[in-house]
Order: sequence, then C-alpha cells, then structure tokens
Amino acid sequence: MANFADEHPVKAFGWAARDTSGHLSPFNFSRRYSFSFFTIQRQQQHVYIFNQHLLVLVERATGEKDVRIKVLYCGICHTDIQNATNGWGGSTYPVVPGHEVVGEVTEVGSKVEKVKAGDKVGVGYILGSCRSCDDCSSDLESYCPQQKLTCGSVYYDGTLTFGGYSDTLVADEHFVIRWPENLPLDAGAPLLCAGITTYSPLKHFGLDKPGMHIGVVGLGGLGHVAVKFAKAFGTKVTVISTSLAKKQEAIEHLGADSFLVSRNPEEMQAAAGTMDGILDTVSAAHPLLPLLMLLKSHGKLVLVGVPTKALELPVYPLVQGRRVIGGSGTGGMKETQEMIDFAAENNIVADVEVVPMEYVNTAYERLEKADVRYRFVLDIGNTLTKSA
Amino acid sequence: MANFADEHPVKAFGWAARDTSGHLSPFNFSRRYSFSFFTIQRQQQHVYIFNQHLLVLVERATGEKDVRIKVLYCGICHTDIQNATNGWGGSTYPVVPGHEVVGEVTEVGSKVEKVKAGDKVGVGYILGSCRSCDDCSSDLESYCPQQKLTCGSVYYDGTLTFGGYSDTLVADEHFVIRWPENLPLDAGAPLLCAGITTYSPLKHFGLDKPGMHIGVVGLGGLGHVAVKFAKAFGTKVTVISTSLAKKQEAIEHLGADSFLVSRNPEEMQAAAGTMDGILDTVSAAHPLLPLLMLLKSHGKLVLVGVPTKALELPVYPLVQGRRVIGGSGTGGMKETQEMIDFAAENNIVADVEVVPMEYVNTAYERLEKADVRYRFVLDIGNTLTKSA
Repeated sequence: MANFADEHPVKAFGWAARDTSGHLSPFNFSRRYSFSFFTIQRQQQHVYIFNQHLLVLVERATGEKDVRIKVLYCGICHTDIQNATNGWGGSTYPVVPGHEVVGEVTEVGSKVEKVKAGDKVGVGYILGSCRSCDDCSSDLESYCPQQKLTCGSVYYDGTLTFGGYSDTLVADEHFVIRWPENLPLDAGAPLLCAGITTYSPLKHFGLDKPGMHIGVVGLGGLGHVAVKFAKAFGTKVTVISTSLAKKQEAIEHLGADSFLVSRNPEEMQAAAGTMDGILDTVSAAHPLLPLLMLLKSHGKLVLVGVPTKALELPVYPLVQGRRVIGGSGTGGMKETQEMIDFAAENNIVADVEVVPMEYVNTAYERLEKADVRYRFVLDIGNTLTKSA
Repeated sequence: MANFADEHPVKAFGWAARDTSGHLSPFNFSRRYSFSFFTIQRQQQHVYIFNQHLLVLVERATGEKDVRIKVLYCGICHTDIQNATNGWGGSTYPVVPGHEVVGEVTEVGSKVEKVKAGDKVGVGYILGSCRSCDDCSSDLESYCPQQKLTCGSVYYDGTLTFGGYSDTLVADEHFVIRWPENLPLDAGAPLLCAGITTYSPLKHFGLDKPGMHIGVVGLGGLGHVAVKFAKAFGTKVTVISTSLAKKQEAIEHLGADSFLVSRNPEEMQAAAGTMDGILDTVSAAHPLLPLLMLLKSHGKLVLVGVPTKALELPVYPLVQGRRVIGGSGTGGMKETQEMIDFAAENNIVADVEVVPMEYVNTAYERLEKADVRYRFVLDIGNTLTKSA
C-alpha cells in the first residue's frame, strides 16, 4: 500500500472508506503543491530536474496552473456511496469520497488566472481531462475518455485522487468553478453534481424551451433540483413518483405544476402523450414503457440514473413516435460555470440538511433509505478536525 | 362480413389473406370512385346530399382530390407478412397487403392538381392522415395519431383499406408520390417503404453528413437500401452482420466501406467508439450493448425494426457517452417525395427479384428465411389476372 501521508508534500486530512463496507473513518493523506517553478508534465514523460535537492519538490508539483483550496462544504451524492462500497466496481481503497466541493482558495500556482487566494470556488465531478480530444475541444470534458475524477481516479502524476471529504484539495484551475457572491456555499454545493447533471441534459436535449411540458422522475437529490431548473426555464413541470407522499411538497414547495403517481394506471393514461421530455433520475431498476407512453411523438426520455442491471426497452413506442432514449452524465466546465451563474441569478439552490463530518456514516444509511430532503451537505470547514 | 365486392362502385381484384395462416389467394372487392361533384368530408360529419339518386354515388365518393391508379408493381415488405398473419395483432381479414405500390394514374378527381391521367405515381405506407395535428402541420403525416395505412386501416368512410396486391388503388393526391421519369418502376417500388424508412432517420438524426462513419445493422430489404443512401450522403459505411456471408457483396456490390461480424468480439472491439451513428434494421431480438459500444460519445443508435419482445437496454453506455437510442417509422409525404427525387438523381434503387402474382406465397416463405437479395417485387401489371 502506498504511503498516502507522505507521497505529496502537503499534509491533508479527511475521512475514507477502507473496504466495501463503505464505512468511513478519519484518514491522513497528502496533496500536491499548488505551484511549481518548472513546467512538469509527467503525463508526457518530460520531467526536468535541475538538482537533487529540487527532485522531491518538482516530482510532486504537477502544475503552475494548480489551485489549492480549503474545503468548506461537500455535498453527499449517491455516487459517493457507490464509490465507498465499490458498488459499480473499480473502486481503489482507501476511498475519500466527495465531488460537490465548495471552498476558499488558499494558494494559486504562478500561472493561475481564473481565481486568487480568498476567492470562493467549487470543484465538481471532474478533476482533469486530456484537453485535446474532440470532447475537450468542445467543452465536454466530462466525456473525455482520459478524464480524471475528483474521487478515485489515477491522476496524471500516477497518484490516486481523493475527494472533498477532506480539509484541503488541489485542482487545475480549468476544473475550478468561480463561485457567485450571492450563492450560498452550503446549499449551492450540490449543484456541482446534482445541478449540472440535470441542467446539462435539459439544455442539450432541447428540453429548456418555455411552454414545454417536462416530466421529472424521482424526487431525490437530482430530481428536486431538476424541477427547479425546469421551472426556471419556463417549462410546465410534472413530477412522476411511485407514491403520493411527496405530492404536496413537490407542488407547494418546489413549484411543480402537477404530480403523477406512476403506479396509478388511470393517472398515467390520462397524461399519455402530453410530455415533450422526461428527465429520469432513478437509479433503481424500473419500467420504461409507462414513461415512454407519457411522451408526445418525437419526445425524449433522458436517463441520468444508472441502474446496475439492464432495463427492458420496448421498441415499438420508439419507432411509432420517433421517440428517443438518451443518457447524460455530468457536464463540461464551461457549462458547469454557466449553470452555477444561472442558479445564482435565479436563486436556485438544493434543499439541504447540513451535517457535521462525524455524521457521514449515518447520513449514508439515511440516504440509502431516501430519508433526506433532499441532499446532505457536510460542514467540512467547521466540523472536520483531527480530534473528531 | 361486409360485401367487399359491392361496398364501393369500382370493381377491384387482388390477392388477400383470409386468416392467420397468411396464405394469399384471389379476392374480389371494390374501390371508391376517384372523383365527386360535391365536397364530401365524412370524417367531419358534413355530408351533403342533393337528391335520392345521387345518394349512392356521393356516399361512396370520398373526395374530389382522389387519384385512381392502375397498379403495375408492388414490393413485398416483411410488414406485409405481419399484416397477413396478424403477427403484430390488430389485423382485420381479409387482408390485401402491399404498401410499396407503383402504378399509372387512370383517373383524377376534379380538384386534383398534383398528377394527371397517364402519370406514373407511387403510394407508400400511409394513405391518409388528419391534416391538422402538429405532426401533419410539420409534414410528418406518418406520426399523425389518426393516420390511415394503405393496408388494414378503417378509412374515413368506414371501410377497410386494401393494399397494393390488387389491380387498382384509389388515394387522396396528398398521399400520392410523383414518379421521376428515370426511376425504374419495379426496382424503385421498395423505396416507398424500405427507402423512406432508412432515408428519414438518417436525415432526422443528422447522420447524413459527409465524412461521418455510419453503421448499418442487417443487410435485408431495409439495410441494403440504407447502405446506398448513406453512401450517397458521403458517409463512410460499415455493415454489421451476424455472419461473413454477405461481406463480399456488401463491399463490392453495395459499396460499403467495411464489414463487421457482430459475433466476432475482436473485430467489434477494434471498431469500438468509431461510429457517429448506427441504423439498426433488425426485427429479431438482439443485444444492443455491442452496438452501443461501437458508437462514439454522443453517437446515435436508431432502431427501425420492431422486435416483438422488449430488448435489454444497458444504461451505462448511454449515460457515460451521452449516447442516444431512437426509433423511427416511415416518413412524411414531403420527405418521401424528396427521397424519391434524391434516389432518381443518385441512381438508387432496391435490388429486386421481380416475381409474378401467383408466386406471392412462395415469396413469403423465402422472405421468412431471408432468402432474397434483397426485395421481392410483384409484377402486378403483367401477371395479376382473374384467371390466375
């Protein structure tokens, strides 16, 4: 096992899962410097070393474009649990989850232009990408085949990335989001994943036109933010849920226009063929046919949840109405900044329950039971202490 | 059972299936007149009758916009077999199949402007639509919820529609395609269904841009025409098939650029992530994952075959690469005319085996075994006789 506490020069502290139990506990590790005097691009195998003394420093410092951040808040996304428990496979332990990170810049590399020390910033799901492929050239870093995730990727310097459940984080400025002054740090944090993951497909699939009728399936962390964005775009929003439990809240609090219980065939039949698009945020296996039947001809069903098993795809409703099923991941950096600015302008934040760091394992248990309205946010700045 | 021979004033003769065996045999029925002196729009419940003598004539004549056609050729589509055998459910017997109809105009209603007696014309899958819904207003009659099919619909006058395996056909001029002079009548006939069903999705889903890499799955009636259109659009075309059998023909005869055997994992892996779009013409159940893996990010898999059972949909490849699975039916009338004109300009026809009417049951048997390259066309004009 690597010596995570010493592999980089900057001491860091966070909470990590050590195995597939996903149980999190305090973890000492390290971060790279946020600045360097020499251009070091280890991914290109060009390492310049001037003398023995500089070797350690230079080898650890991957870029003069790096920003060092004191983490203040970090949202808890369901993907964090997947990462911590190896739910999708591919997790490398220890896992420090967290990719809805808001904090304050403490230090910047010599060529950083986007932010300065003291600025509030965000870091989302993506921590790096190749910057040269078709997707990167189209501001779609989130689809770059070489992308590096904020949690659990092997970064360009060969070390494992550790997420935002930690006191400090270092990121290339390209992957840092400028935080609008009026956007709350805690309730805004989930926008960095839940927000962009719903904003991006509504935009990309053209489901952001005023007057359209948009369905949102699942009223969890993603769904409740999707309702807010869709309303801000001027669309008519119908929440589709398995039970009536959230109807009043969806309409009165989140501003949805109507509510459909997917297990009520009469309600579903009455709404058949009325929707231009549906954003489906459900990760559990569920039938697609009832959703496809809600779409108009040429309507689009966009999946942003990832069930581990294949779903059943009835082909006839696709062919008959030239309907489409699309998927969408998170968004690129340009669009994430646009989304954050749009949220600030439209007073859109997540509904959050801010909890201390030591509550994280309980939060995971409650999240697994969907017992949160609608997103936990860890108060890293005030509660992450070595003595915790 | 209705008296099909007398319900309309014009005697007609064709071949029909009487039950789910799908076996076809000679059938006497009738067609409406192709002209009228009064505007009769029974679908709107406005029937004007001036005297008792005219009653019969007027009740049968549904439009001064009607065109009467002497059928010359009719393609045999796999849907004909579904219609004849009630394979999709909903068939009403007797079934006169046929929706790739080419013929000569013999008579036109008083307000017909599009064609005149003697003109060569085509009639495809759609015989009528409401002309007022959003789809009809967008030249997408093929998605009109009130559409009437050339075979097996209850038409606006309450009578069953009979398809092109018959000596004569009557259609509203809106649903009649002008036939270009240089387009062969026999080999062009399948374009009216197989052609538009592949041309339309390539256009609609933006898979018609020169330089794109397009996959075509299944080299049957639809697939072989899809290859020709995709090549004419200037794309690079790869045929994806379960066996090597058609490789030489696909490349040397149809002009495909390459050929992939879907059961060869090495070949499929080598082609992973290379395609902008795939047109999947297969109606049998088949796995989608290997096809999705061939797509680039943001690539589109378009299904035009309709398996009777649901397919397995793996969601991760959709989300990861923002890929899309779409369906597409046949096209609207404006686009069908555009397709026919494009085919004529680019010398695109189907590869056909022209057979006499009495061969139809054998043709069905062979088509079920995919024993045709690539489309049967009935020589109605020369071989459909009452003494047959």
